[in-house]
Amino acid sequence: MTISREVRLKSRPVGLPSPETFELASVDVPEPGRGEAQVRNIWMSVDPYMRGRMMEAKSYVAPYQVGKVMDGAAIGEVVTSRDRALSPGDLVLSGFGWRERFNAPVGMLTKLDTRDVPAQAYLGVAGMTGLTAYVGLLKIAALKDGDVVFVSAASGAVGSIACQIAKLKGHTVIGSAGGPEKCAFLREIGVDHVIDYKAEENLTKALMRTAPDGIDVYFDNVGGAHLDAALASSRTFARFAECGMISQYNNTSPGEGLKNIGVVVPRKLRIEGFIVSDHLDQQPAFQKDMTQWIAQAKIHWRETVDEGIENAAGAFLKLFSGDNFGKMLVKLA
Amino acid sequence: MTISREVRLKSRPVGLPSPETFELASVDVPEPGRGEAQVRNIWMSVDPYMRGRMMEAKSYVAPYQVGKVMDGAAIGEVVTSRDRALSPGDLVLSGFGWRERFNAPVGMLTKLDTRDVPAQAYLGVAGMTGLTAYVGLLKIAALKDGDVVFVSAASGAVGSIACQIAKLKGHTVIGSAGGPEKCAFLREIGVDHVIDYKAEENLTKALMRTAPDGIDVYFDNVGGAHLDAALASSRTFARFAECGMISQYNNTSPGEGLKNIGVVVPRKLRIEGFIVSDHLDQQPAFQKDMTQWIAQAKIHWRETVDEGIENAAGAFLKLFSGDNFGKMLVKLA
Repeated sequence: MTISREVRLKSRPVGLPSPETFELASVDVPEPGRGEAQVRNIWMSVDPYMRGRMMEAKSYVAPYQVGKVMDGAAIGEVVTSRDRALSPGDLVLSGFGWRERFNAPVGMLTKLDTRDVPAQAYLGVAGMTGLTAYVGLLKIAALKDGDVVFVSAASGAVGSIACQIAKLKGHTVIGSAGGPEKCAFLREIGVDHVIDYKAEENLTKALMRTAPDGIDVYFDNVGGAHLDAALASSRTFARFAECGMISQYNNTSPGEGLKNIGVVVPRKLRIEGFIVSDHLDQQPAFQKDMTQWIAQAKIHWRETVDEGIENAAGAFLKLFSGDNFGKMLVKLA
Repeated sequence: MTISREVRLKSRPVGLPSPETFELASVDVPEPGRGEAQVRNIWMSVDPYMRGRMMEAKSYVAPYQVGKVMDGAAIGEVVTSRDRALSPGDLVLSGFGWRERFNAPVGMLTKLDTRDVPAQAYLGVAGMTGLTAYVGLLKIAALKDGDVVFVSAASGAVGSIACQIAKLKGHTVIGSAGGPEKCAFLREIGVDHVIDYKAEENLTKALMRTAPDGIDVYFDNVGGAHLDAALASSRTFARFAECGMISQYNNTSPGEGLKNIGVVVPRKLRIEGFIVSDHLDQQPAFQKDMTQWIAQAKIHWRETVDEGIENAAGAFLKLFSGDNFGKMLVKLA
């Protein structure tokens, strides 16, 4: 028997999650059964979409259950295997985050190739995070030559990859982020025009000043005032890839509401929400492109790493305060 | 010389247009030049999109100019022709509405075939109005088997055609209109579930009660609370054909704002604005289908007819008060 600590949903949060939302517990992990492996997690991911799973409402993924361990993406090392497909020491990607150790059928574990890509990058730039940026830009927004691209939360895990893919494809990119440090990073990765939204009183005016001829693509991670600004600045036939609305996830009331939706008709906009798991057909193309871009040092990324399962809830909360920088990770071992 | 009365934009309206917005004037119409015809208008169309053209802002059609005659779709009779393509007595469709008589190059006039379709129907069901419904449903919303379709302003010129096309294609249709008379008409044309929005305190609750399993397609003519209700009731992968937002056109401030846009991401919605003139490639298919439907009495429509150019402004205002029923027309001769 081995002890594993895990994080459970203690109660469903109203508004911003608090210490009352999470509960740290210990469980015994038995020996793995036939066809299973035991994995010791090394890295786990915290992601904005998990806020949605804390609510009871049915959505595109099942809600977390009160009193039960949460889940999410994690990378771990196989410690025991009862299947020939995996051996001790193998690094695997799984959906069994928010815990230190677990048993799972080997079919639920993806063995990783870490020759060119560091393991934890499979939770970010080389994983679902990067694929989200890739799908949103190339498939949902259907990026085409000459498009001016606006990305919000542009220094974030998804946003920073979206900016760089757009730059690699030759586009003018406008990125918004909060604070001088994040804005400096955007300039480092080649973003053409940077908006520090925390320094702007009126985001719509800031964007219209930055993109006087308007934008053709908006990669939205934020919603709210950012979405209104993008609507105001949109050119005819602009496409909005709606990836997330982190500014809204902890709202307890609908708040102000979106003011500028009226332009959708005369400007013939397309506003489309997407969830990466519906677009796994893009995975092979993404894997090929991204592995090459990483090998050629054409893609840069930041990570914020907190240590220990006991700090996972705090790491999650940084996603909403903006205290993380780039991909937020928790190192478990 | 012949006198023609015409309606000019007197001043740009703020909010709802008023008598100060319009000015009736008389002009002399000379004999037509070579290659031209002189047309006496019989019918003219007033349409919601004209409200947008009264504003100075550049949009998908040029704004009306203060002090100048307005324009729009009209049907008239050729009185003199100086080109072999047209003869006196021919009925023609043109963009020279808001006036009684005019000269134009014959290339700007479309001769009408009125054997199966009454002339004024080319301003409605058999013209751009019908094509708008056709394109919005079949191309923008990409209607597919089993879709539940919600149409707002469902007794209106575009809405009533959209409802009937959806019924002809075998769909469950929910229509909203204001008042018992319009709602009765919706039942007559086969709409499955009718919402009298004027009788409902909370449109979102009314729609969720009417479509407990949600909607797959929303054909939006109204915006505002209707759009919010459709968002709340949307099923995964629902498509919104954004045709118009008549509830918003006379707003002098953005008002309350859209509350429910947040569902666009988890439900993976596609919200797309369109203007019929970008989709004239659909005209041949539409013409074929619609002529057949009309000949087989499968499509029904209502018209509200006001008489005289001096009443054109009043007819236009009925579009916003809802005092029209179906296609709003002005009979000029």
